[in-house]
Amino acid sequence: MSKYWSPIVSTLKPYVPGEQPRMANLVKLNTNENPYAPSEKVIEAIRGAASADLRLYPDPLALDLRQAIAARYSVAAEQVFVGNGSDEVLAHAFAALLKHDEPLLYPDISYSFYPTYAGLFGIDAIEVPLDAAFRIDVTDYRRPAGAIILPNPNAPTGIGLPLAEIEALVADHPDQPVVIDEAYIDFGGESAAALVPKYDNLLVVQTFSKSRALAGLRVGFAIGQRPLIEGLERVKDSFNSYPLGRAAQAGATAAIKDEAWLEATCRKIVASRAKLTAELEARGFEVLPSQANFIFARHPKHAGGILAAKLRERAVIVRHFAKPRIADFLRITIGTDAECARLVAALDEIL
Amino acid sequence: MSKYWSPIVSTLKPYVPGEQPRMANLVKLNTNENPYAPSEKVIEAIRGAASADLRLYPDPLALDLRQAIAARYSVAAEQVFVGNGSDEVLAHAFAALLKHDEPLLYPDISYSFYPTYAGLFGIDAIEVPLDAAFRIDVTDYRRPAGAIILPNPNAPTGIGLPLAEIEALVADHPDQPVVIDEAYIDFGGESAAALVPKYDNLLVVQTFSKSRALAGLRVGFAIGQRPLIEGLERVKDSFNSYPLGRAAQAGATAAIKDEAWLEATCRKIVASRAKLTAELEARGFEVLPSQANFIFARHPKHAGGILAAKLRERAVIVRHFAKPRIADFLRITIGTDAECARLVAALDEIL
Repeated sequence: MSKYWSPIVSTLKPYVPGEQPRMANLVKLNTNENPYAPSEKVIEAIRGAASADLRLYPDPLALDLRQAIAARYSVAAEQVFVGNGSDEVLAHAFAALLKHDEPLLYPDISYSFYPTYAGLFGIDAIEVPLDAAFRIDVTDYRRPAGAIILPNPNAPTGIGLPLAEIEALVADHPDQPVVIDEAYIDFGGESAAALVPKYDNLLVVQTFSKSRALAGLRVGFAIGQRPLIEGLERVKDSFNSYPLGRAAQAGATAAIKDEAWLEATCRKIVASRAKLTAELEARGFEVLPSQANFIFARHPKHAGGILAAKLRERAVIVRHFAKPRIADFLRITIGTDAECARLVAALDEIL
Repeated sequence: MSKYWSPIVSTLKPYVPGEQPRMANLVKLNTNENPYAPSEKVIEAIRGAASADLRLYPDPLALDLRQAIAARYSVAAEQVFVGNGSDEVLAHAFAALLKHDEPLLYPDISYSFYPTYAGLFGIDAIEVPLDAAFRIDVTDYRRPAGAIILPNPNAPTGIGLPLAEIEALVADHPDQPVVIDEAYIDFGGESAAALVPKYDNLLVVQTFSKSRALAGLRVGFAIGQRPLIEGLERVKDSFNSYPLGRAAQAGATAAIKDEAWLEATCRKIVASRAKLTAELEARGFEVLPSQANFIFARHPKHAGGILAAKLRERAVIVRHFAKPRIADFLRITIGTDAECARLVAALDEIL
């Protein structure tokens, strides 16, 4: 506490990101990073942007990047909003679109930044419980609501919803903005971006951090019809005119154009996910069905917190949430097959 | 307007950045960019960061960068906050430190983002008029206030305050946070960072965009005692955990360490400023005394808006604000001597 703080500050519950340890020979499976290097075309584009032109402001409209994203998702550039990671895009969405008289709805087990945003922007929120199988049931959202946000696939469960269920949710709430947070969509889900032309209340948010292996670049985006995008733009232009530097814009533009790299990389991760799931199940783990680049698993005889600590002693870091209902789960990022093998070997020592 | 917008959105008055035209052979003197390329060490550092490691999140604490800034300003790393350009740092400062029961004070002629931030965060603000010579008189701030922010040197006037006056202002308001926005300090001003150890209510904000020629990289920072920095951190960690990507952190760290480059570049710009000021005065302009990398000038016989339009016809772009008291002024960035000569030649055609 400080007398110099605005009153809101002492009420905040800041998000705690997964740690970024500085250890050698670590198997880092805690923050859902891509185990593969990004496309060489991205690296080249960023090196090209490292030039004398850095003295100049970047394009505040990020037009090249927005056009490239628009082409990829068959929408218009004016239906694309970009920001400094999907976290900044989500923050602007909370401020611009999710604060209404009726409460915001999101799942009780979900991205842990949502309650933080709700607190920052003074948004009244209701956490809608996942069902007994840790699934989102969209009929549970048929209740008075000012707005809805949910991840698809959900995190940290990894469980995805079919596009038809997302469409039912969006169609059920024509007067409310519905934000679908698709950070992990490329690992097996169906993007709701295809529904944007049909629904003016739908905003789809994605990131370059996961499937495109660019967590270190900080670029995310949203797709929606003009009124939603304009709302985001108005807040963004009241906050920071240039959230994406020249290197970020150039790198992300190259990334979105390299579809072959994306497909090959996601295919490898999906194959590793199936293999790791089988290995864990063979060792007695319950593994939730994942459409993401991580799995959420628990062992009937071993507490999650203790398993995570014992893995850490063996230089394998996974994420554990000490929260009701999920305290016995580990969230394990899909690494390379070699990294997954080191995890399994460590588990074989522990179990 | 859209029914999907949060109520705040329709009340916002978004900031309008100086345009970034895509024209060849332009003399671009409208957004106070540095006319010189950044240090080669910065370019190399960014190219080095364009690697496979981009798949990993950046350090959310940006420790290397904060340590380098701390060393440069003789403070501790924990007294340094970094963000995505000084605009993001300022936005967080408005949210975290400048909203109180009493109004926020800032100059009536100043950085035009301040009223935008005040609107976004619902901060009651009073604009304190500059004196007849367009100077900030710190005794005008002796009135009930929740907080104070002002740029030193001020923009768009370019006029700086001596450190003793800044200290008097900070000492006058021991119960209020006082933010000194030093975007242009390296072009002849004295930084108030030296006062941070003495005053717990002082926050100093700087940017890499101007003196370090990195507008395209998006890095800014603040220096203050722990309670102020902690307030900023709490808001930042409730908004976006990783605002600075790997390339930005690496580039900015290299930049802050290259003191020789900074000194040589600022010396050239200060010399060009003196030369351009003399050239304009010889043509009848009144030029306010600038400590920034721009000058603010008006001609007794030519309206500012018309002059700006005629310069634009000649591919010379300067910034004009159609606002009371300053509508006849042009804000002209100090370019290279060759760019300044093209401006003067264009003016000779026009006048």
